[in-house]
Amino acid sequence: MEQEQTNTAKPIRCRAAVSRVAGQPLVMEEVEVAPPRDHEVRIKITCTSICHTDITFWRLEGMHPSIFGHEAVGGGAMLGQGVALDPATWGHRPHPVHPSSPLLPGTPSLRIRMVESVGEHVREVAVGDMVVPVFAAQCSECPDCLSTRSNLCSRFPNIPGSMPRDGTTRFSFASTGEPIRHFISVSSFVEYTVVDITHIVKLDASFPQEMACLLSCGVSTGVGAAWKVAEVEPGSSVAVFGLGAVGLAVAQGARMRKRMGITDFINPNDTDGKTVSEVIKELTGGSGADYCFECIGSTSVMAEAFKSSRMGWGKTILIGVVGNMATIGIPSYDILQGRSVMGSLFGGIKPKDDIPMLAQKYLDKELELEEFITHQMGFDEINRAFELLVQGKSLRCIIWMDDAKENGVK
Amino acid sequence: MEQEQTNTAKPIRCRAAVSRVAGQPLVMEEVEVAPPRDHEVRIKITCTSICHTDITFWRLEGMHPSIFGHEAVGGGAMLGQGVALDPATWGHRPHPVHPSSPLLPGTPSLRIRMVESVGEHVREVAVGDMVVPVFAAQCSECPDCLSTRSNLCSRFPNIPGSMPRDGTTRFSFASTGEPIRHFISVSSFVEYTVVDITHIVKLDASFPQEMACLLSCGVSTGVGAAWKVAEVEPGSSVAVFGLGAVGLAVAQGARMRKRMGITDFINPNDTDGKTVSEVIKELTGGSGADYCFECIGSTSVMAEAFKSSRMGWGKTILIGVVGNMATIGIPSYDILQGRSVMGSLFGGIKPKDDIPMLAQKYLDKELELEEFITHQMGFDEINRAFELLVQGKSLRCIIWMDDAKENGVK
Repeated sequence: MEQEQTNTAKPIRCRAAVSRVAGQPLVMEEVEVAPPRDHEVRIKITCTSICHTDITFWRLEGMHPSIFGHEAVGGGAMLGQGVALDPATWGHRPHPVHPSSPLLPGTPSLRIRMVESVGEHVREVAVGDMVVPVFAAQCSECPDCLSTRSNLCSRFPNIPGSMPRDGTTRFSFASTGEPIRHFISVSSFVEYTVVDITHIVKLDASFPQEMACLLSCGVSTGVGAAWKVAEVEPGSSVAVFGLGAVGLAVAQGARMRKRMGITDFINPNDTDGKTVSEVIKELTGGSGADYCFECIGSTSVMAEAFKSSRMGWGKTILIGVVGNMATIGIPSYDILQGRSVMGSLFGGIKPKDDIPMLAQKYLDKELELEEFITHQMGFDEINRAFELLVQGKSLRCIIWMDDAKENGVK
Repeated sequence: MEQEQTNTAKPIRCRAAVSRVAGQPLVMEEVEVAPPRDHEVRIKITCTSICHTDITFWRLEGMHPSIFGHEAVGGGAMLGQGVALDPATWGHRPHPVHPSSPLLPGTPSLRIRMVESVGEHVREVAVGDMVVPVFAAQCSECPDCLSTRSNLCSRFPNIPGSMPRDGTTRFSFASTGEPIRHFISVSSFVEYTVVDITHIVKLDASFPQEMACLLSCGVSTGVGAAWKVAEVEPGSSVAVFGLGAVGLAVAQGARMRKRMGITDFINPNDTDGKTVSEVIKELTGGSGADYCFECIGSTSVMAEAFKSSRMGWGKTILIGVVGNMATIGIPSYDILQGRSVMGSLFGGIKPKDDIPMLAQKYLDKELELEEFITHQMGFDEINRAFELLVQGKSLRCIIWMDDAKENGVK
């Protein structure tokens, strides 16, 4: 029984990119990662990427010291079994394919051991499985998990800074023993992390890791919002506010529903003095869009998205996370004209049910993922990856952990 | 061809309860009602009732002089064919049944001629039909009418003060010729009114008139909101804010979907210092209600209804019409937790499709209507009916026009 390894699991010392001060560059530190407790899994991160929610919380006071990161794939490659990657092939590539991807002809199939160790009562995965840690839980037992209407596990609502069951942390500084906060049940800017089994999705180990990484948050959120929350119908007009990875994924999700692509782009700084909603009304014959997605997390953009929605049945779908407790102002007269506003986290995606299905859609070429990866780099360059996202120069940057391991921290 | 009567239709002088000054008692006046123009129908009102929207607009400046009223049944009883009603049987009755109702054993079936005259191009109804005038149009040709998702005709959006096609009025004071404003395409506080055919629903003349009157606005709105907008599911928890006729009709509509009734009442003045949303969360095991309906038209109640809705899938359905251009404040964090807010006018009811169906549900005893009628009185007493509604002492008061006719104005 692989579960028996639990009792023998020891703390691991490894490298983490720790956020010590709000908005300041991450600091590469040696940290200690405790063994998994009951219902927990310790996994080795193969690659991670950065989502705007990392940026939002990184800038907030009161969240530090913390290990951010929540888009990732868990890899448990044992020492000596790691894959040597050639950093020369990374950098900005328009259509990058990672060397480990089975899409690359001639690449040997990899069987990296992903789950490093498991705690008691973990039956769903075993050491060696390839897993995606996800910020949203799916306990599969609570009223929300049992309902098709909700994707927000009510048994394990997200706790930003600690493990979901006991409120403690598995991270500490190796030098001082000072605890380090978890981030939304994942914490992937580290070589090894501990994740509750309710936040773990198992994928076939042959699935390309960087694509799995994309599915763990942003891209799934956008695709899910179009497909599961809005249920975009064929022939509908769709306006997407904020064309980052989530917004572009909304377009993908809408296209999967209706076989159409993006037809018009509006630069809000280049509208001849018109508001964006006025331009959208012009583009839709005066009526407004059937579906408006806000993918930024700005209450003023949310209000503009609502104004752009069609009378009679226009839906405004809010996806962007607002960093403070701000209120959205909805004109009462306008919403009474048959409009609606719906919010969702993670695009209505139920992690364990829907991520494997999206992975299959990628393999079936119904879902395009390559285009989202604009950059790839090593763990040491994570602050550059932050800058690229903050400056709007990247969609998703895949950060590979292997070089970090080869830099000597165990 | 009955349509040929159009050319011979003459102006009719009759009585109207005219609103001359905002918030002041209506004044019984002799008015002239022009013949119907193309696509219009002139109907004789049999009975009318008062809805809170009448009160809302009656209080607004800039709407006067006006003939309010939009819950009605159009009757075209010719002189001598009218039904003599006994006013002694009116007044406050808990379960009133009007003498003309087929529900009353031994009452002779009535074949009152309802449509008085029709304009050119009117094919859908003929002189003598019993009709319900409705504030919402259904042209059956525009994108909204052709869609199952909208009930807001985009060809004839509602114009508060005039006829929908030409922006003019059919009402004037008999004494001075001064024009009088229409009200949301109906104007029923008058013995004869002119209504566009897109705002007319034909019912079988044997259908009880006071029940048809109820279906023309408030009750249909509430039933429709539960049934067509929210699509309340069996087993759901439903919170209704504002138990006037619309709110009670929401409960009816929810019950039609799930065979349950109202289980708890909350008096907001008697909650031991708790907010209504706190009480609702307690009553629902801490989670909040699946569906929250706002049936008042107060932005603060709308916000409280939203706060009472369940994380994960809670829907807040806004029905109450706010009398000004107020904005509803929705906390961004809360709506992102899987909640939604949807507005509707007339509860998503498509007049020509859905009102006959609701009438059939009444005949099939699936929909209870009797309970909504708390008072009945004659046209002369309309200001008392206003007071009862303003004071919250009535649900619906049926105002019968026949006595007005017998008082001598033709």
